[in-house]
Amino acid sequence: MTSTKDLIQEYKERMQKIADLKFSSAVLQWDQETYLPPKGAEFRGQQIATLTELAHQFFTDKALGSLLEEAVNRTDLTVGEKRNFELTREDFIKQQKFTPAFVRRLSEATHRSFHNWIKARKENNFKFFADDLDTLVNLKIEEAELLGYEGHPYNALLNDHDKGATVDLLSSTFTSIKEPLKDLLKKIQQAEPIDDSFLKQNYPKDNQWQFGLQVIKDMGYDMEAGRQDIAEHPFTISFSSTAVRVTTRIDENDLSNMVWSCIHEAGHALYEQGLPADQYGLPLGEAASFSIHESQSRLWENHVGRSLSWCKFYLPILQKEFPKQLGSVSLEDFYRGINKVHPSFIRTEADELTYHFHVMIRYEIEKALLTKEIKAIDVPAYWNEKYLEYMNITVPDDKTGCLQDVHWSHGSFGYFPTYSLGSFYAAQFYRKAILDHPSIEQEIADGQFNTLLEWLKKEVFHYGRKYSSEELCLKISGEGLNTRYFLEYLFDKYQNIYHF
Amino acid sequence: MTSTKDLIQEYKERMQKIADLKFSSAVLQWDQETYLPPKGAEFRGQQIATLTELAHQFFTDKALGSLLEEAVNRTDLTVGEKRNFELTREDFIKQQKFTPAFVRRLSEATHRSFHNWIKARKENNFKFFADDLDTLVNLKIEEAELLGYEGHPYNALLNDHDKGATVDLLSSTFTSIKEPLKDLLKKIQQAEPIDDSFLKQNYPKDNQWQFGLQVIKDMGYDMEAGRQDIAEHPFTISFSSTAVRVTTRIDENDLSNMVWSCIHEAGHALYEQGLPADQYGLPLGEAASFSIHESQSRLWENHVGRSLSWCKFYLPILQKEFPKQLGSVSLEDFYRGINKVHPSFIRTEADELTYHFHVMIRYEIEKALLTKEIKAIDVPAYWNEKYLEYMNITVPDDKTGCLQDVHWSHGSFGYFPTYSLGSFYAAQFYRKAILDHPSIEQEIADGQFNTLLEWLKKEVFHYGRKYSSEELCLKISGEGLNTRYFLEYLFDKYQNIYHF
Repeated sequence: MTSTKDLIQEYKERMQKIADLKFSSAVLQWDQETYLPPKGAEFRGQQIATLTELAHQFFTDKALGSLLEEAVNRTDLTVGEKRNFELTREDFIKQQKFTPAFVRRLSEATHRSFHNWIKARKENNFKFFADDLDTLVNLKIEEAELLGYEGHPYNALLNDHDKGATVDLLSSTFTSIKEPLKDLLKKIQQAEPIDDSFLKQNYPKDNQWQFGLQVIKDMGYDMEAGRQDIAEHPFTISFSSTAVRVTTRIDENDLSNMVWSCIHEAGHALYEQGLPADQYGLPLGEAASFSIHESQSRLWENHVGRSLSWCKFYLPILQKEFPKQLGSVSLEDFYRGINKVHPSFIRTEADELTYHFHVMIRYEIEKALLTKEIKAIDVPAYWNEKYLEYMNITVPDDKTGCLQDVHWSHGSFGYFPTYSLGSFYAAQFYRKAILDHPSIEQEIADGQFNTLLEWLKKEVFHYGRKYSSEELCLKISGEGLNTRYFLEYLFDKYQNIYHF
Repeated sequence: MTSTKDLIQEYKERMQKIADLKFSSAVLQWDQETYLPPKGAEFRGQQIATLTELAHQFFTDKALGSLLEEAVNRTDLTVGEKRNFELTREDFIKQQKFTPAFVRRLSEATHRSFHNWIKARKENNFKFFADDLDTLVNLKIEEAELLGYEGHPYNALLNDHDKGATVDLLSSTFTSIKEPLKDLLKKIQQAEPIDDSFLKQNYPKDNQWQFGLQVIKDMGYDMEAGRQDIAEHPFTISFSSTAVRVTTRIDENDLSNMVWSCIHEAGHALYEQGLPADQYGLPLGEAASFSIHESQSRLWENHVGRSLSWCKFYLPILQKEFPKQLGSVSLEDFYRGINKVHPSFIRTEADELTYHFHVMIRYEIEKALLTKEIKAIDVPAYWNEKYLEYMNITVPDDKTGCLQDVHWSHGSFGYFPTYSLGSFYAAQFYRKAILDHPSIEQEIADGQFNTLLEWLKKEVFHYGRKYSSEELCLKISGEGLNTRYFLEYLFDKYQNIYHF
């Protein structure tokens, strides 16, 4: 019988080889989004495909399966080793459910679909994308069947993004916030409007860039283990916990475009940099889930970055950097300006409140598509109707409406809800951090983020994927997800800001 | 029987998968040399090792061997297909000669050796590297035995860098230039010294960078299929012929450091960009040899970039960019300054003449090590004696002497000679280009490089690896390598410059 030590050794070697391939592919993707000149795109796509295919091939190797079966029954494993084996086995069993033929069909469909989504956006006409969306929905239904589920087929896809998430959980979660948020929005719309025009002046790029860098360094983002570059769509990407990169974009005529996107991405990056390097390639070296990842970016972006304390520290710095633009803006006006609520069409530009309407609409559409209540061709009308219902705004065209997000064209269904879950977890976690360390808010006003960061390292980062989102939430806050904290936070905040 | 069409299809798929891995590894290396923050180095090394190992594994797959055996005997192949199969089969047979155990021993030895070379440089003491060099030499002797050779064991290693190169060829080549170059150097040293101090003034980095970019764009380097970045040691790297990158370094107190290194690297890059993209992953999509690659960089750097015509066009531009530094420098003084001959210790900073003494010394040492005429511990004394003999200069220490180059620590033996061969081929090719198109020199003076570039595309680039260095030379110039052209070029040039 192979010794447990040898089993672990072989397991690590196999997993690290797969990680090497995945992270190499990530380097190629980072390069593609930042520095790759246009003519290099074609072969780059092929190179990434080869790396992805090999990683998949090594992860579905039957020999790995046997090793995992043997390992989970060993009695001389540490808790960490046992958990790694369990999680890898779960992933392995899941992967085995996909036949190579299905993987190929899905890959071909998303490839075609992505191109037609680009075309549809260019033509500003959903019809060019409708057939592909139907095909993808059918493939996703097939995927749900392959994966297996209880209750709603959507559960299989939700579970894939956030283990344990179900339609029941999400529907009750969204129900719990829908009316309160609608009420809150009504109150805000009845209050005195906020003037945030000072944010939309000319802010030179270089100064913005320098400020953004300072902000993320202050947060504790380790520039020796990461770097920031410009990309069209900001993202965070990891090549190991010792090499985690962020990107941002700069709009010379809108300060907010960059600043809070920098903080958001650095929130993701702090999490990745905080994952244990000695678990490279293993589940305990990975983030807990999509929604916990998002909880980190949202916690920093909103609870820290849009707080009055944050403004106290950074407004004077901004005023020094941009005296003409901000010299005469008061702390209160600045704080109110960056927190202005305004129903709008584009999810990625939405405020903290209306953001969740954008997500709920996508959630409802995904659910309806998967149960065939609607077909792809019905999406634009359904979408526009929902925007009218939730925010009382009339979507002018498909590009501003149901064609705005890339996710569906990539075959991503069940992803959007994690954005909202992340916000709700963020509120619940942040409240606990403040309870544990009431000094945090004053420290933020002094430009000190270490207590908060250390708390996050201890409570979230170092566990890796040990706990599911709900388990982690329970461990941290003593209860499962409770939107009460999010709602309290928002009501408090907007009451202060809108004086209602 | 498998149809030839299917054989070719399978061959291409296998080779392209290997290329995808190698080029992915190249992306990771490029990133490591340009943008990787320090803490990311460890896992990056592991990722590159995994990609390299997989590429090696796929290339030594017995199924590929059988395919190649079957393919070379097919009679319904195009000339190009046949040549691809032949060359791949040669490579395959060569790779098969290395046992996995040998590959591992060599890889471990170079890994350790590289670290000790770094240490030896830091301590400025060759002794820290001597044992490793002995180990590597023994491994290289073993490699020569595995590869097989006629005559000298060095032939096996030379052949690996430049098919067909032998000690006989190189020794007679070097013999043919040794005395003439020594005589030439003597004449130069007796002539009025050249003042090149105007090159060693302060040249602001940004302006140098912009000028360097203009120069390589003018040469025809396609920025849509490449880019330039800063690296400690300039290099060219390819991820496909549609993605070829160059790097440079800038010394604010020495204009020449950057300018001719930009031209040199762009010379390499033009070759890579000119390789046929439809032969991606196949021998006909690769460069002919190390020495032909170097012929391209040297042709541009020396024959074009250090010509009077080049100065005619670029000096006025430089004077506009750097009026204080160059405003009063005459065309003749500029031309003379950038061509100053001066015996020195560092190969990479040497002029066109003394450069080859540096190479000859390394060639002689490699040869002597491989036949055990000397041992590693004898290298410093041998080295210093040769520098005294060839250039009449006294090497002050090991760092400035035998520890300056990284090559041996990487296990590279047989590489240095290709630098000189490249120069000699460059002279022979450029002479032919001028014979074919006498307008080239005037065009250079007008900042036009297209005739030359088109000639190179036609005569060199598009063949890929179809011909060996000597075959290509014969095809282009009607004879094999003949150092006469190089010597004529140098004598003419320095006669004009030093007025002897």
